[in-house]
Amino acid sequence: MNTFEVVFQPDSIRIAVKEGTLLTNAMKQAGLAIQLPCGGTGKCGKCVVEIQPDAPPAGDFDRQYITDDDLARGKRLACKTRVDRPMRVFLSDTIRAAEGQILVNGLDRTVSIDTPLKKTYLDVPPPSLEDQRADLQRVAETLGIYNGSCPDIDIRLARELPDILRNANFRITVTSENSRIVAVEPGDTTSRLYGIAFDIGTTTVVGSILDLRNGGQEAYASRLNAQIIHGEDTISRIKYAIEEPNGLSELRSKILGVINEIIDEAVEKAGIEKHEIYEAVFVGNTTMSHLLMGMSPEGLSKIPFVPVTNTPLTTLAKDAGIGINPLGTVHVLPNIAGFVGSDTVAVMLACDYLDDGPTQLAVDVGTNGELALRHDGKLTVCSTAAGPALEGAALTCGMRAAPGAIEHVTLTENDVECDIIGNVAPAGICGSGIIDIVAELVRTGIVDSVGRVLPPEECPRAVSEELKSRIVENEGGEYEFVLAVDESGDVPRRIVISQRDIRQIQLAKGAISAGIALLVKSAGLTLDDLDEILLAGAFGNYIRAESAQRMGLLPMVPVERIRFVGNAASAGAKMALLSRSARADADRIRHVTGHIELASMTEFMTEFSNSMLFP
Amino acid sequence: MNTFEVVFQPDSIRIAVKEGTLLTNAMKQAGLAIQLPCGGTGKCGKCVVEIQPDAPPAGDFDRQYITDDDLARGKRLACKTRVDRPMRVFLSDTIRAAEGQILVNGLDRTVSIDTPLKKTYLDVPPPSLEDQRADLQRVAETLGIYNGSCPDIDIRLARELPDILRNANFRITVTSENSRIVAVEPGDTTSRLYGIAFDIGTTTVVGSILDLRNGGQEAYASRLNAQIIHGEDTISRIKYAIEEPNGLSELRSKILGVINEIIDEAVEKAGIEKHEIYEAVFVGNTTMSHLLMGMSPEGLSKIPFVPVTNTPLTTLAKDAGIGINPLGTVHVLPNIAGFVGSDTVAVMLACDYLDDGPTQLAVDVGTNGELALRHDGKLTVCSTAAGPALEGAALTCGMRAAPGAIEHVTLTENDVECDIIGNVAPAGICGSGIIDIVAELVRTGIVDSVGRVLPPEECPRAVSEELKSRIVENEGGEYEFVLAVDESGDVPRRIVISQRDIRQIQLAKGAISAGIALLVKSAGLTLDDLDEILLAGAFGNYIRAESAQRMGLLPMVPVERIRFVGNAASAGAKMALLSRSARADADRIRHVTGHIELASMTEFMTEFSNSMLFP
Repeated sequence: MNTFEVVFQPDSIRIAVKEGTLLTNAMKQAGLAIQLPCGGTGKCGKCVVEIQPDAPPAGDFDRQYITDDDLARGKRLACKTRVDRPMRVFLSDTIRAAEGQILVNGLDRTVSIDTPLKKTYLDVPPPSLEDQRADLQRVAETLGIYNGSCPDIDIRLARELPDILRNANFRITVTSENSRIVAVEPGDTTSRLYGIAFDIGTTTVVGSILDLRNGGQEAYASRLNAQIIHGEDTISRIKYAIEEPNGLSELRSKILGVINEIIDEAVEKAGIEKHEIYEAVFVGNTTMSHLLMGMSPEGLSKIPFVPVTNTPLTTLAKDAGIGINPLGTVHVLPNIAGFVGSDTVAVMLACDYLDDGPTQLAVDVGTNGELALRHDGKLTVCSTAAGPALEGAALTCGMRAAPGAIEHVTLTENDVECDIIGNVAPAGICGSGIIDIVAELVRTGIVDSVGRVLPPEECPRAVSEELKSRIVENEGGEYEFVLAVDESGDVPRRIVISQRDIRQIQLAKGAISAGIALLVKSAGLTLDDLDEILLAGAFGNYIRAESAQRMGLLPMVPVERIRFVGNAASAGAKMALLSRSARADADRIRHVTGHIELASMTEFMTEFSNSMLFP
Repeated sequence: MNTFEVVFQPDSIRIAVKEGTLLTNAMKQAGLAIQLPCGGTGKCGKCVVEIQPDAPPAGDFDRQYITDDDLARGKRLACKTRVDRPMRVFLSDTIRAAEGQILVNGLDRTVSIDTPLKKTYLDVPPPSLEDQRADLQRVAETLGIYNGSCPDIDIRLARELPDILRNANFRITVTSENSRIVAVEPGDTTSRLYGIAFDIGTTTVVGSILDLRNGGQEAYASRLNAQIIHGEDTISRIKYAIEEPNGLSELRSKILGVINEIIDEAVEKAGIEKHEIYEAVFVGNTTMSHLLMGMSPEGLSKIPFVPVTNTPLTTLAKDAGIGINPLGTVHVLPNIAGFVGSDTVAVMLACDYLDDGPTQLAVDVGTNGELALRHDGKLTVCSTAAGPALEGAALTCGMRAAPGAIEHVTLTENDVECDIIGNVAPAGICGSGIIDIVAELVRTGIVDSVGRVLPPEECPRAVSEELKSRIVENEGGEYEFVLAVDESGDVPRRIVISQRDIRQIQLAKGAISAGIALLVKSAGLTLDDLDEILLAGAFGNYIRAESAQRMGLLPMVPVERIRFVGNAASAGAKMALLSRSARADADRIRHVTGHIELASMTEFMTEFSNSMLFP
């Protein structure tokens, strides 16, 4: 019996399932918490998913609930569709939910819901000459939080209280966060209590609305980080912030704009109002957190790389400029150091690093590579400037993982086999494709160990003439390898990987593998001591472990020790949104985690230049 | 040996001293806390005061320190001037101070300084590769308030922290309020720590800047409450707030404008910057508090008279619109009920009502009369709508206590003797003068017990023809009594008290004396049981106790049981500014004080109509 790979989106969870498996069962295997109102009998039509590139043939149940247009687009009922080919499955937000506990996507753990937010419906006794209690005291006493002093309530809300009370005939719902009154709404709104978790990436920003009563994901939206026009990496953003007039406030407006667009989209998808989101949790690298909170990242730009703060930050949404309920709370999770941000803390949180467990190395490959090691109950992190090459940026034909991107490459004896996202004409190469092609060029010997793209005549004898014919000299006298030709436009365009690209990739993978080597060494370990390497980030989910090892990005541990943990930073943010103890754990992680500044280690340059070589 | 009356301004503290007493000793007798750097030897010239209307002759010491212009204006050294006539003495702000404790003006008690604000000078160790602590953690640790989580600091201040630190070479002064960081200033500013106490009256607003290190009053300023153009009493302000479009926000802007003008004037007088005021305390009646905080007073306008809140309110200055340090705290002391505000709480605080003591009745005569009874450790308050008549408003020739106002009146057999403020031409009658003249008209029988101004022919035989000639019939056919004629203008103008005025005054004094009677009765007491009646308010200090008794405003207790306690509301506000325990006491007063709603008592109307009669 065959086994096919199924990738669930938007979480990029990848699993292999046996032919004939029901999609709903595959989802459960993948650890996705789903809800099937009719129990998977095909009677409710709620479990519609979209399957790409080619959906299995539609059945009667599908035709009953899905329009012809949507069927043609690949929509099917998950409970009636069996896996008969590799597929990418796009989940709607409504299919996922769970009571009391949520499963952290792609990770083998759950989190108990323990939000500080509570909604209480109150039938407040109206005042009379015998009961002249003031409005605020009256409400606080009915709610049971009156302790004799002024309830914790924003003066703006206190101003509105009399009108809300009277217009609602003294029947109201109070939203409280611990003992603070966050909102007072007319009537009974206890069933509407939402929060939003954000992962602010240097390149991509994602936000997920969760139902705080049961952890269900109500909606999800993402956008490119609009700061990107001022530089692709954190260093150029910092430079812009400190060198341009109003640079900092411009970058802050940019990210706030993106966040608020995501909120607008997500509330519309979820069918809720913005004011019904009472809390937001943010993770991101230290630079992103600083720019988001309007704090100058100048200290991060130079030795000794000092942030304004590493502590978690809590402020009102109105003060942070976040378009949820203005009196809702915004939490930014703590950073560990100038270049190890709350996104890494969130990865460590999602991977349960505070608990005892095997020796694990979490690798978050991005513009800034962040590495987190757990060994013997001790946590250590470091960061290493990989540059944008491994994300597909700054390369001749690099691109983000979007339709047209070559995401996987295999060199057969005579040909180049490319998997292209969306099955359209090739437009460029994204990160996972880059790692594949470099691994394949190294394997075949077309690129030598110092990273030179060999001219055809210098290639090993085993390289076929067909492959050699793809090695061409460019205008600068250097060689490049042609993966594919885009013939969709007027003029055919070659998708290549150039000598310059290889150098960029060497720098990136050299930085990360040197970081791995030094982090492991500083703990008194060798690579063999690593029980598991966890690859985090949407990027991580697409990389072929073997390719990453072959081109020297990941160490040569047995491949089964490499595990993909999906967007663990986002999962950690959601955990913190749902659970006070997760939030406390995040701060504990900051306190107990040691940080190694690679720049201050004398071995770094040696290790780095060694690591630039291909194995 | 003669005894002369000395009135100390701006606190309106009135004492009688023996002829020849040194002014500095008179100040001490009056309970004023003063400082004399040279010990009163005439060597420093710091104790300059201004004496009105006529200063004693200047001596050599005076001429040494004071210019001829200022000497002519009545300025003298207090330590070298002896009382040889009745005088009004204007104290400068610099003369008054004390270490550690301040004497509550006009009251026989002190308060220990116990502010939650603290300034600490820090020499912060700069960061290095070995010490990469974040700026905020670094400062909090140096300050000794870092507990592992984020220090309590406004995000706006956190944003400025890196620049402040670096521009000051890491030498800074941190202002903290408990564990909250309020301000970070470059260099050592520990000697500059100020607060401001406000008494927001319906008519007059006064603010006093205090040095929070030693309680010294640095400056004082006052203004007419600019809301007055929208009504003279609280009821018309409430009406304006709820009936006019934007009425509430307009009234709020008006009072904020006045407050901020007072701050501007006071900081200039004191030679400090606005940002050096880190805390403000406000007292006022419940309507004034509501309007100040932008809360609708609508609930106060109708039965059952419910405020938005009675609790103390604490908010940031920037959120309250108060022009001190934007991150400074604004405290509004608690109210007791819809018409018994924090000004009454402050009076009770200043009069030490929480302690055991004699049976006392504090009377705050204003547009709204507020009464507070302490008996056997039990506190009870009520309010009674006196109207503006006793403040000189809404009467034919009424005016505020300002130059030209007749403040005292005595009827001799053949004449009317008037004391006029500022010794200028008479312009009108202020509150104390009104009480005097009514008392005198009742004593002489010109006004009978039901309040009728008798025509000359009906007056008792003992009334001289000279006095009778002052009783004139006006255009409406009613009689009025002429106190004086202002001949300073082109046309002589009569200063009169009319039949209509007498009716207004009857309503006012009836309301207050009915309130007193019912409050005393509800405690199971008679008027004889009152050990003391405390007359509070600037107004109180000018009233002649005998006049107030004779016209029936104050009960006929032995006159020595009547005590003037000055602007006790303002004194209470200052105590709360200087002392956390005073602030806690204010809230305790709210909790333990019983409130009687006169409107709900069946006896009120009977008592009220009886009280309208003159004794």
